[in-house]
Amino acid sequence: MAKVNVGRKILDANETYALKNSELLTRNGNRCFNMISSPGSGKTTLLVRTISDLMGTVRIGVVEGDIQTDIDAQRIRATNAPAIQIITEGACHLSAAQVHQALQKLPLDNLDMLFIENVGNLVCPSSFELGEDGKIVVLSVAEGDDKPAKYPGIFAKSKVLLINKIDLLASALVDFNVERVKADARRLNKGIEIFPVSARTGEGMADWYDWLKVQLTKA
Amino acid sequence: MAKVNVGRKILDANETYALKNSELLTRNGNRCFNMISSPGSGKTTLLVRTISDLMGTVRIGVVEGDIQTDIDAQRIRATNAPAIQIITEGACHLSAAQVHQALQKLPLDNLDMLFIENVGNLVCPSSFELGEDGKIVVLSVAEGDDKPAKYPGIFAKSKVLLINKIDLLASALVDFNVERVKADARRLNKGIEIFPVSARTGEGMADWYDWLKVQLTKA
Repeated sequence: MAKVNVGRKILDANETYALKNSELLTRNGNRCFNMISSPGSGKTTLLVRTISDLMGTVRIGVVEGDIQTDIDAQRIRATNAPAIQIITEGACHLSAAQVHQALQKLPLDNLDMLFIENVGNLVCPSSFELGEDGKIVVLSVAEGDDKPAKYPGIFAKSKVLLINKIDLLASALVDFNVERVKADARRLNKGIEIFPVSARTGEGMADWYDWLKVQLTKA
Repeated sequence: MAKVNVGRKILDANETYALKNSELLTRNGNRCFNMISSPGSGKTTLLVRTISDLMGTVRIGVVEGDIQTDIDAQRIRATNAPAIQIITEGACHLSAAQVHQALQKLPLDNLDMLFIENVGNLVCPSSFELGEDGKIVVLSVAEGDDKPAKYPGIFAKSKVLLINKIDLLASALVDFNVERVKADARRLNKGIEIFPVSARTGEGMADWYDWLKVQLTKA
């Protein structure tokens, strides 16, 4: 039982910081979303486009989680949005304590919305609450349409599923049944919102932006 | 320090089984490779093609690791190769003890080579030895060329890097600099063998097969 108890303690410590983060974000009127996916599904590209397209309408900040490098934070800062990079040095997920430290460095009172881009990993990050209002799972069509069935945890817990890189479907080089993914995700999570998008071409992004704007009215 | 000690104990228990697996495989003359990648990089498709193309030359068995479903084992068995499915029910990596159980169910004395297809996760599986002769990391070009820099652990530890889905490069829908990936991977791991391949079209697979055949002469 030793292993289980220690696991429990780690989760409890995480939940304490998750609550602190949630309180801090609520106090500043920030809506916060925790973005989770496999490596290379296009999370950063999605964020860059979202920030640019909503510039002047929604003030967005970003906490970037990566095992190594600040490549992603640099890409976000190129849009002029504030971004804090957390380098986990090998850890497979962000912890609420790490996010808590990052929040101290962001101008929260000048932001409407905060995205936390988690470490690229479809499994572990789903078990660690960070104080967010909701999780956004991203699945690229290049990853295949069996992923909700094979990695159900994150699809069951997310408010939104962004099916990204739909521009690849037209190439006929990728086998991906969008309807299968929608059905499998909804079997796990009746209320999940699903937006097929291409962060590269912009296709489908308007519906995602509309959803984000509605979230602001709930703050 | 409690956390560190427990982590150490888990690794030690894992290493005990990894040694047992290694001894069992050596006794049966099996070469064994642990295949690790993000979800959806094409590990199963690579294995299906490899098994089919080497049929009659190399007798291959597979241990499949997935969080849920036996979709992948079914795909392997359709080639007539023996495959044992391990369902981890949420765990983010295969353990050597799980593989040890699976090995009991395989006709090892009738096999030349065993592939272990790990859970789709570019981070955690790299820390758990399973008793393999080497790790094979798979990276799909759709995941982007910054992955060795951002997820260095598995690239540093692998014998082979398979850069998969290179047929997508021709579509011009994917930005991926093969030379950048080769340089970044070799900076982490001077001896790593790198094969750009398409499991879909077969391009580049011959070099991978040649490498596998050379491994058999080392058994």
